[in-house]
Formats: sequence, C-alpha cells, structure tokens
Amino acid sequence: MKDRELLYEGHQKRVLATEDEERILLCFKDTATAYHDIKRATIAGRGALSCRISALLSEYLGKNGVPTHFISQPSDAELLCRKLEIYPIRIIVRNVAAGSIVSRLGIPKGTVFDGPVMEMTLKSDALDDPMINRGHVRALGLASDLEMETMLQLSVRVNALLQKLFERADITLVDMKLEFGHDGKGNIMLTDEIGPDVGRLWDSRDGRSMDRDRYRRDLGDIIETYQELLSRIELAL
Amino acid sequence: MKDRELLYEGHQKRVLATEDEERILLCFKDTATAYHDIKRATIAGRGALSCRISALLSEYLGKNGVPTHFISQPSDAELLCRKLEIYPIRIIVRNVAAGSIVSRLGIPKGTVFDGPVMEMTLKSDALDDPMINRGHVRALGLASDLEMETMLQLSVRVNALLQKLFERADITLVDMKLEFGHDGKGNIMLTDEIGPDVGRLWDSRDGRSMDRDRYRRDLGDIIETYQELLSRIELAL
Repeated sequence: MKDRELLYEGHQKRVLATEDEERILLCFKDTATAYHDIKRATIAGRGALSCRISALLSEYLGKNGVPTHFISQPSDAELLCRKLEIYPIRIIVRNVAAGSIVSRLGIPKGTVFDGPVMEMTLKSDALDDPMINRGHVRALGLASDLEMETMLQLSVRVNALLQKLFERADITLVDMKLEFGHDGKGNIMLTDEIGPDVGRLWDSRDGRSMDRDRYRRDLGDIIETYQELLSRIELAL
Repeated sequence: MKDRELLYEGHQKRVLATEDEERILLCFKDTATAYHDIKRATIAGRGALSCRISALLSEYLGKNGVPTHFISQPSDAELLCRKLEIYPIRIIVRNVAAGSIVSRLGIPKGTVFDGPVMEMTLKSDALDDPMINRGHVRALGLASDLEMETMLQLSVRVNALLQKLFERADITLVDMKLEFGHDGKGNIMLTDEIGPDVGRLWDSRDGRSMDRDRYRRDLGDIIETYQELLSRIELAL
C-alpha cells in the first residue's frame, strides 16, 4: 500500500509515506535509546507520550507564529506532518549547562547562561555529529547564509516560547535540539519531535530530570515522569 | 636579574621579562614538538629560522596596518615584543582543507574553500583545546562581543595579507593559527609567532609541505625547507 511505504527508520521513530506526496506520518516507537543506540530498551507507552507532548508543543509554537511541519495527530503515536527537505544540521539551544558542554568546556553543571548559548552539529553518524559553525555550513554547502540565519533566529524564538510555557509548568528548559527543513517553496519550518526525548527538562522545584536522562542515567519512573510532564504542559497551555 | 625572569615556558618558546614592564622577550627554542608534545626533538637552527620568519612576517603585517606585538629582533632567536594580556582563544583560518578538518568533517584534503573558513578553539591543555563559537566566548567571558569581532576581522585581514605575500613566493597558505592579546589601553594586537610552526604552507609548484608537517609526518629536510621558505619570503617582500 502506497500510503504506508517506510521512508526512514530511526532509533525512536519511523517515517511513513501517505497518499499525499507532501505529507508524511511520523510514528513514535516505544523504544528508548541512548549513547548512539548503544543502550536500548522498549518501554510500553513511551512512544504515545512523546507523540502527544510533541503534538501539543508543535501546536503551541505554530499558534505563536513559528512555522512547523506539524499538521495533526491522527492516532496515539502518530503525527501527520508536512514532508520537508531536512537540513543536515542540528541546532542545540542551551539555557543551563548540562550534558556534553559540561565536560567539553569545563562549565559547571547547572550554570545558568545570560542568554541562550547556541551550538550546531553536522548530522552524521559516520563522523559522530561533529560541532560545526557557519563557516563550515557554507563550506559544506549545507544551507545558504540566509537559510542559516533564519534557522538560528527561529531557534531563539522557539526557545523563548518554550521557556515561557515551561516556566508556567514549573519546569526549567535546560537545552533542546532543534532541526529544520524546507518545503518545495523554500519555506523553512521546524521539524522532528519537540519534547523530553530531544531536550533536558528539570523540575524547577527539586531539580529532578523530566526527560530522556531518566532512561540514559537509569533514574527510573520514565512513564510516570513523562505522564506528569504531559499533565503539567496541558495545564500550562 | 629582573630582565631575564622566566614568565612562561612553552614547548617551543620561552617568554622572558625585560627591564621594561611593558615588553617581553620571545625566545625560540630549537625544540620541535608535535601532537601535544608527545613527539619531540631538538633540531639545531630551527629556533632561529622560525624567529626570523616570524619577525619578517610580523613586520610586513605591521606595515600593512595590522597591529602586532612585535617590536624588533634583538638577536638570532629572540623577538622583543609588547607584553599583552592574551585571550585564551585560538583562531584558525583555513583556505584549503588539511589536518583536523579533513577527518572531523570529512572534507577531502586539498579542497580549496571559496572564502576563508574560520574556527575557534579554547586554549586549554586540560580540555584538549575544544572548538568553541561566539556563544561560548560570551558564556565563558573570554572576550566581549566587540573584542571578538575585532579579532575575527583582524584574522581575515592577516590571512588576506599573508596569502598575497605567499602567492608571490609560490607558496599556498593552507591554514594558520592566530592568537591575540590586548595592552593596558585595550588595543587588540596579533601576538605569538607567525610562520611554518603555526600554519600549513605548501609549495605551489609541487605541493610539498614547507611547514611543521615535515617534522610531524617525518618528511625530513626540516632545516633546508625552512631556509628555503625564509629565502622565498625575503624575495617576495
């Protein structure tokens, strides 16, 4: 059946074709992975929770003027999205030091940055996602200067909007990985999922992780925490 | 004696105090090192050749409007320089792909970039000189936005001026590491040495390395090549 052709399978998601050439289905798996898929487990219900959170956050961003690939959520663990040409660039927005930046630059974990610190990596399993700058983007022909500028400006806006929302939910947006793509007309949009699988979210009250670090660092209660995260987001919206 | 107090000793150079608080002596050693000092040898005459080349190139840049720390060359292997507060940032200007960028980003060696590709690293032995961007410079408080902008603009100018000179000497300026500092009045100047120990220089005729790679990669003829490099620079000036 043409409307279910598998276009791409990632660690945690599948991308399926639909009858409409310009739309895809993003299907969330229950698989949880970490450290480039070295650690992997199936956690029943994880996919649906990540999917719901992603749908709500995408909708919120869309309503606030950020173009995203999200169209609708046709079922528990599926998002109907615009099919985009994806830039092989990951933009990481950091508000608080955690993860790789701590060991890489010797910045103490928990350091709050004055403004968001942006990083870019090249999406490449073979090269282990190396850090890149705008000169590299130019040299590798990954995006035009204008496209890159648009993606960075959108990232700052996405970060500010999510910070505002999460603040109302008593959650600290520590960092988030963002990806962008463009449609046939050159419109640049936020793509991929948004939520606890691609960013760090800390409970502002006690500092506990409400994101994929619960799995990465064996902190347990993954489903319970994602469920609480979803409830808090729903209340804050 | 106060005028010979050792202020700093690096792998290839010593920095000595002078009677004038605002001036230092940069003394070139004959030591050749590579791979963070894992490989090391003494090559008689290397220090004096690197010193002479650095003096000539600094003088040339100064005459062309680039502020540098260089004052004069009082002896074979010594440069008298302004004492500066050094920024812990290394700026790498790349015109042709070679070295770390080849393996890091999968760009074929010898690829000529449309314009210079700039990279920045944090000078830190403990952290193994990690790559940084302007956001990191801000977060770590390494330099103000204006200082960073000035250093990057000066780097582009230094690169263009050196390219012009080396072209006349039939040499390709592949890449160069630059460092900057500021004096008590906030004047930003190019510091450290300039030449084959901190950049890649390829003979435009046959592509052979005329720089520290001769030592790094055991290509031999180090003194002969540095001597030839010096002669060619003298002719091109």
